[in-house]
Amino acid sequence: MTAAVHPLTESAAESAEALVHRLARAGRAAQRELAGLTDGEKAAALCSAAAALRAAEPEILAANALDVAAGEANGLTGAMLDRLRLDPARLAGIADAVDQVAGLPDPVGQVIDRSMRPNGLALSRVRVPIGLIGIIYESRPNVTADAAALCLRSGNAALLRGGSEAVHSNRAIMAAFAAGLAAAGAPAEAVQLVPTQDRAVVGAMLTAAGLIDMIVPRGGKSLVARVQADARVPVLAHLDGICHTYLHAAADPAMAREIALNAKMRRTGICGSMETLLLDAAFPGSHGVVAALLDAGCELRGDARAQALDPRIKPASANDWDTEYLDAILSVAVVDGLDAALAHIAAHSSAHTDAIVTADSQVAERFLNQVDSAIVMVNASTQFADGGEFGLGAEIGIATGRLHARGPVALEGLTTYKWQVRGTGQTRP
Amino acid sequence: MTAAVHPLTESAAESAEALVHRLARAGRAAQRELAGLTDGEKAAALCSAAAALRAAEPEILAANALDVAAGEANGLTGAMLDRLRLDPARLAGIADAVDQVAGLPDPVGQVIDRSMRPNGLALSRVRVPIGLIGIIYESRPNVTADAAALCLRSGNAALLRGGSEAVHSNRAIMAAFAAGLAAAGAPAEAVQLVPTQDRAVVGAMLTAAGLIDMIVPRGGKSLVARVQADARVPVLAHLDGICHTYLHAAADPAMAREIALNAKMRRTGICGSMETLLLDAAFPGSHGVVAALLDAGCELRGDARAQALDPRIKPASANDWDTEYLDAILSVAVVDGLDAALAHIAAHSSAHTDAIVTADSQVAERFLNQVDSAIVMVNASTQFADGGEFGLGAEIGIATGRLHARGPVALEGLTTYKWQVRGTGQTRP
Repeated sequence: MTAAVHPLTESAAESAEALVHRLARAGRAAQRELAGLTDGEKAAALCSAAAALRAAEPEILAANALDVAAGEANGLTGAMLDRLRLDPARLAGIADAVDQVAGLPDPVGQVIDRSMRPNGLALSRVRVPIGLIGIIYESRPNVTADAAALCLRSGNAALLRGGSEAVHSNRAIMAAFAAGLAAAGAPAEAVQLVPTQDRAVVGAMLTAAGLIDMIVPRGGKSLVARVQADARVPVLAHLDGICHTYLHAAADPAMAREIALNAKMRRTGICGSMETLLLDAAFPGSHGVVAALLDAGCELRGDARAQALDPRIKPASANDWDTEYLDAILSVAVVDGLDAALAHIAAHSSAHTDAIVTADSQVAERFLNQVDSAIVMVNASTQFADGGEFGLGAEIGIATGRLHARGPVALEGLTTYKWQVRGTGQTRP
Repeated sequence: MTAAVHPLTESAAESAEALVHRLARAGRAAQRELAGLTDGEKAAALCSAAAALRAAEPEILAANALDVAAGEANGLTGAMLDRLRLDPARLAGIADAVDQVAGLPDPVGQVIDRSMRPNGLALSRVRVPIGLIGIIYESRPNVTADAAALCLRSGNAALLRGGSEAVHSNRAIMAAFAAGLAAAGAPAEAVQLVPTQDRAVVGAMLTAAGLIDMIVPRGGKSLVARVQADARVPVLAHLDGICHTYLHAAADPAMAREIALNAKMRRTGICGSMETLLLDAAFPGSHGVVAALLDAGCELRGDARAQALDPRIKPASANDWDTEYLDAILSVAVVDGLDAALAHIAAHSSAHTDAIVTADSQVAERFLNQVDSAIVMVNASTQFADGGEFGLGAEIGIATGRLHARGPVALEGLTTYKWQVRGTGQTRP
């Protein structure tokens, strides 16, 4: 079945660059075919891919067992093994997610705006696919199906390069996915998995300007940093999520406590989890919030004024304010009013998600306007920073860059637009 | 007055990188100040800058005379000297253009869309400035005021690096512009001109990721190519405009002739001018179109079938199909039907602007959908590819990249967005 994934791997030894360019050209050709399919045909192809994933459960779980065994032999951490491991329920979840993407509205063809010029030219901006999206990811095999589905739903082709730990799982998932597409009459090469783990492939993808239109890295900070540093192709990514929650003087103490607990402790390992808590010196509920976090098992690292709130708070070092813990650890600072909070956030935020808790709507609006992050929130947990929670259906990732798309990026962020001009013989004076 | 442009130039010898980083930090600080101004205050600041340009006519024209004299001494071509030369009418035009930008609607704060989640979270996407825009341009001094005005109108700061040929003109224009801003209470450093012509400055700007948010090159192909090759900062640009016009079998011969003449000959030096004419073998008016172009003084370079139409047509070389002449020269090919035209365009277009002339609406819609260029036109001259003609008021440039903005880019393309989330205490289950 791997033939459906990379038809020419039997070809003689080929450089990583030549391989990437060959796959990219095949992907671009498939993308042009894809552009000829209707919305319904693209959706049907995804449902067929989902069905194929379910039908291939034995092959996929067997392949995954090889990866898990190798991971155990290579001493992967429990967390890494958990990310890697598939079971019938998780595989069903992967297939269901593909069906859900099939059910999302197709952004392609959507008219962004129209205008009629005085000379009679009718202008419209229409959404079109970006083209070929490169996905570079690590040990989560579900990304193989998730990313492929989102790219295909929006009319894009995808070239995926997964991590070595999940190589057998990824190949089995991609083989089933591509076979499902083909069975529905869609071009199987619209989604391709790079067939080798040669590390040079990543560099070749990052420099394939003109062949790969956008790169989306999915993985740890070191992967994203490398991609951002070396890419010659536009990158959609966030390096990290140093998210702040500021408890303003006018915050309701009970609401503030619940939001702070949820923002930090619901899941400590996601990019939207709070990493720094800013307590207004005039907020009356600070002791209660701090105690609740400590009692919930969170380590707190505070500045001197925060430490004075509870003897269990450890001293924060200068690095703490710029650290994404992704763990039950939180840095805590006491600030004097909104402007001090804004200054701290401007200095330390990663521009991912920052929140304020306050009952003062004027303060809330100032925070919403002046914090220059992809997502700014009032009276809500930063853990809502997620495409699904935003009603986007699914997300290819969260972007903290300033161009194209910011925050949770889903189907719309995988499209661009063209100008269509309809005339009746107009010439320019 | 130059003090208003670069306050610290008296500082000791400083590396190009240190200089660019210092100016960028000052620009970013000014941009944050700018964000505090109302729409009306930004508009008033631009009107004040326009007035200052008019008031500084003697200084600006005197400075321009130095550049023109130096250009003549250095043997600049007539065309280059013409681009460089200012006179009272041209300077008035520059000032008027700044007033016009002041009159454009401010995109900042515009709500792109809103949604209410089932849990009561109210989401909105709101336009915000991109930040600090780097402008790298050549010999047209008007760019100094045009680009600065567009960036400022959309709440961005601008760091400009002009060409050596126009150094005195640029400094005089920027000094007046910045003084006008300051007189209106706007931060003068929101627009800065790099005070040195050190070539290393360009490289330092292209690699100032995190300090400069976007680079817009304005100039010839070699400048744009260099910027695209070396930039570590997102670039908004088009390398060239190899624009096609396809005269379909069902094109009205008279309309086709007028559109072809206008697309090529109105102004041959602009990026939207037609460079390749595709004649359908079944189009009855080909002889007339070809004769009209030749009689208008255009050199035609054709494939064998095109040459058969008129003995005055020279043979085209393989390069001609990929050449942007920017002159009264046109490559001409005869194609068999829409698919052949689409294939030629897919192979040779620079994805800038491509047009079809036809009375068959189904053919027209297929062309509009299948040509993957920033601008696709039916029954109109490609010379309309211009932000002003599109009703955008003015343009910072035309982009042929696939992300963020395509085609003519004006104020909206100088903004990004943030997600604002308004809650009432929601926590994520």
